[in-house]
Amino acid sequence: MTPQNKALTTVHPLYLSAPDAVALVRRKGLKACIAGIAENIREDFLRWHDFDKSARVANHSRDGVIELMPISDDNAYSFKYVNGHPKNTAIGLSTVMAFGVLADVATGAPTLVSELTLTTAMRTAATSALAARTLARPDSRVMALIGNGAQSEFQAIAFQHLVSIDTVRLFDIDPAATAKLATNLAGSGLKVQVCASTREAVQGADIVTTVTADKQYATILTADMLAPGMHINAVGGDCPGKTELEAAVLEAAKVFVEFTPQSRIEGDIQQMPADFAVTELWEVLAGQKAGRDSETQITVFDSVGFALEDFSALRFMHGAALEAGMGDRLALIPQMVDPKNLFGTLLQDAANTACASQLLAA
Amino acid sequence: MTPQNKALTTVHPLYLSAPDAVALVRRKGLKACIAGIAENIREDFLRWHDFDKSARVANHSRDGVIELMPISDDNAYSFKYVNGHPKNTAIGLSTVMAFGVLADVATGAPTLVSELTLTTAMRTAATSALAARTLARPDSRVMALIGNGAQSEFQAIAFQHLVSIDTVRLFDIDPAATAKLATNLAGSGLKVQVCASTREAVQGADIVTTVTADKQYATILTADMLAPGMHINAVGGDCPGKTELEAAVLEAAKVFVEFTPQSRIEGDIQQMPADFAVTELWEVLAGQKAGRDSETQITVFDSVGFALEDFSALRFMHGAALEAGMGDRLALIPQMVDPKNLFGTLLQDAANTACASQLLAA
Repeated sequence: MTPQNKALTTVHPLYLSAPDAVALVRRKGLKACIAGIAENIREDFLRWHDFDKSARVANHSRDGVIELMPISDDNAYSFKYVNGHPKNTAIGLSTVMAFGVLADVATGAPTLVSELTLTTAMRTAATSALAARTLARPDSRVMALIGNGAQSEFQAIAFQHLVSIDTVRLFDIDPAATAKLATNLAGSGLKVQVCASTREAVQGADIVTTVTADKQYATILTADMLAPGMHINAVGGDCPGKTELEAAVLEAAKVFVEFTPQSRIEGDIQQMPADFAVTELWEVLAGQKAGRDSETQITVFDSVGFALEDFSALRFMHGAALEAGMGDRLALIPQMVDPKNLFGTLLQDAANTACASQLLAA
Repeated sequence: MTPQNKALTTVHPLYLSAPDAVALVRRKGLKACIAGIAENIREDFLRWHDFDKSARVANHSRDGVIELMPISDDNAYSFKYVNGHPKNTAIGLSTVMAFGVLADVATGAPTLVSELTLTTAMRTAATSALAARTLARPDSRVMALIGNGAQSEFQAIAFQHLVSIDTVRLFDIDPAATAKLATNLAGSGLKVQVCASTREAVQGADIVTTVTADKQYATILTADMLAPGMHINAVGGDCPGKTELEAAVLEAAKVFVEFTPQSRIEGDIQQMPADFAVTELWEVLAGQKAGRDSETQITVFDSVGFALEDFSALRFMHGAALEAGMGDRLALIPQMVDPKNLFGTLLQDAANTACASQLLAA
C-alpha cells in the first residue's frame, strides 16, 4: 500500500439517523424492509455456529434497564444499545430507544452508526413472523394482538405479509392504544376486530401475539384461554422479572427460543426449572430438529430479542442505505496521517511550534 | 406536563466528533484536560460502591479484539466501544479506536455520543498519573517510557504536570516511534533522553512506564532491571494473552489494580495464581488501605483500563463541550409526538392516507 493510499483509508462510519431510517423505510416500503430483514435473520440463523455469541450485558435501575448486545462473526461485529423504561411515555419519551453499530472485525473500525428504535421494531416483527412461519399451522389466518403499543403495527404488518394473517383481534388495557393501532392499520387490508379483553381477543385466534410492556411478572395469557393447535408469539416477556405467560401455558406447549442461555434468564421460561425442555429456532430452520409435531400441538415462541437479529437488521439497513445513497459520514474516529502519532492530531493545523508550546503549557 | 412541553422533550444527544475533541483540547490545553479528567477519576473512585461494575465484554478475533465497557451509577450510564488491532498501523489505521456514550439512567436516553480515541489516551495517562501520585516516591523525577507509540506523549505530559517528572528516558523497538515522541515533546520543558534499550532506559529511573502494543506475552521488563523504590506503571498488558512484566517483577513488588475481577483476566497478574495479593487503587485513595509501605518497596500499578475511568472522562468532556458551546446534536432517536405511536413516525409528514396505503402496500 502506497503512502497516498494510506492517507485515504477512511475511518468515518456511515451514519443513519432516525429521520434517515424513516425516509429509507418509506422509500422501500415497510413490507419490503421487514421481509428483507427476516431473510437476513434466516440466513444468519442458518450459520449459527459462525457467531461469537454472548448474553446481553444489562445495567438495571429503579425504573428501567440499559443493555448492550454484542455479537460477531469472522467478518463483522455489531452491538445494540437499548433501554427499557415503561414510565417514559408519561414524559413524552419512548419506552424503548435504541441505536447500534456495525464494525469491521479485521480492523475494529466502525462502519455504521444507526438508529435502532424503528429498526428494532422491524426486526422484532421479522423474527416473530419468521418463527410463526416455521412453527404455526400453515392455515393460520387470525391473530390476537395483546398489547397495542409501539411495536404492535409492525407485528401486524409482518404477520400479514410473511404468515398470511388476514384478521387481527386487538386488546390493550389502554383503549387509546387500541384505537391508535386500529387507525394505523386502516389502510393495510387487514380485518381489524377490537376486543374487550384478552380472553375475547384470543377466542378463535390461530396465533396469539403478546407484546405488553410492564416491567413486572404479569399473567397476560392463562392456560384456560388456549385452544389446540394455537401458536403463541410471546414478545413482551423479555427481561428478568418480566413475564407474560402463566407457567401452565408453557407446560402445555412445545417451547422454542432464540438463544437458550439468554432465554432462561430473560424469557417467560425464567419461571420454569433450569432443565425445562426448549428447542432453539435455528435448529428448526436448519432442519436439525422438528418444529410443531402435530396439528393440535400448542407451540410457544418465547422471544426475548437476540443480538444476532440486530446484526441481521443492521446489515440490511446498511446495504439499503448505501444502495439508496442515504446517510452521512460521522467523524467519530480521528483521521490520522500517521496513526502512531495521535498527539500529532492536536498539532495538525498548528502553523508553528508556538502553538505546540501553547497546547502543552496552557 | 402539558402537551406542548411533551413535544419539547429532546432525545438528541450531544455529538462530540474527533475534530471537535481536538478543538476542545486545544482550547483548554492538554494539561488542563488531563488534570480535569484525573480529578473526575479521583472523585468517582472515591464513591466506588455507587457504581454497577462489570468486566468488559470482549469479542476476540484473529488480529484483534473489540470490547464494550459499560458502567453506571444511580444517575448516569456510560459505555465505551474500543478495539485493539496491533496490525492496523500497517494499513494507516490506529491500533486503538474508540468512541463512547453517556446516558440518563432515569430514562435510558443517550445524552452524549463522543469520540474516545483522543479522550482514552488522556484518561489512561490521567489514571496512570493519579496512581503514581498515590504510589510512587514523592521525590520521583525521572521516568523511563518504554513503548513510544500513540499513547506515550500523553503519559509524559501527565507525569510532568501531575507527578513532577522532569526527565523522560525513551525506548521503543521502532526508533522512528522514539524520534516522533522526542520531537513532540520538544516544546514541553521535559528533559528527553533517547536510550538504546529498555535496560538502559530503566537505569536510574524512579518510575518505569511500559506502554507497548504487541498482542502477545512479552517480557518487556525483567526483575534484574529493578531498583529499590521504583514505581512501575504497567499500561500495555491489558488483555488475555498480552503481558509486559516478567512474573518475577510482580513477585518482587506490591501490586495495585483498578478492578480485581477484570485485572485477574486482563492484567499482567493473569500470569499469577488466582490468590496473588493485590490492592485496589480506590482503597488507597480512600485511605482504607496503605499504598507504598516503604521508601525501598517496589510498587506496580497493573493498569488495564477500567470503564469507570471512561465514565469520568466522558463526564469531563461533556461538561467542557457544553461550557464551550461545542458539538452538534445527533438525531439518533426518533423524536415522537406520541411515543406509543412509533409507526406514526413513518406517516408524520404524509399529506394523506394515500401515503399510508403506499407505505403499507409497497
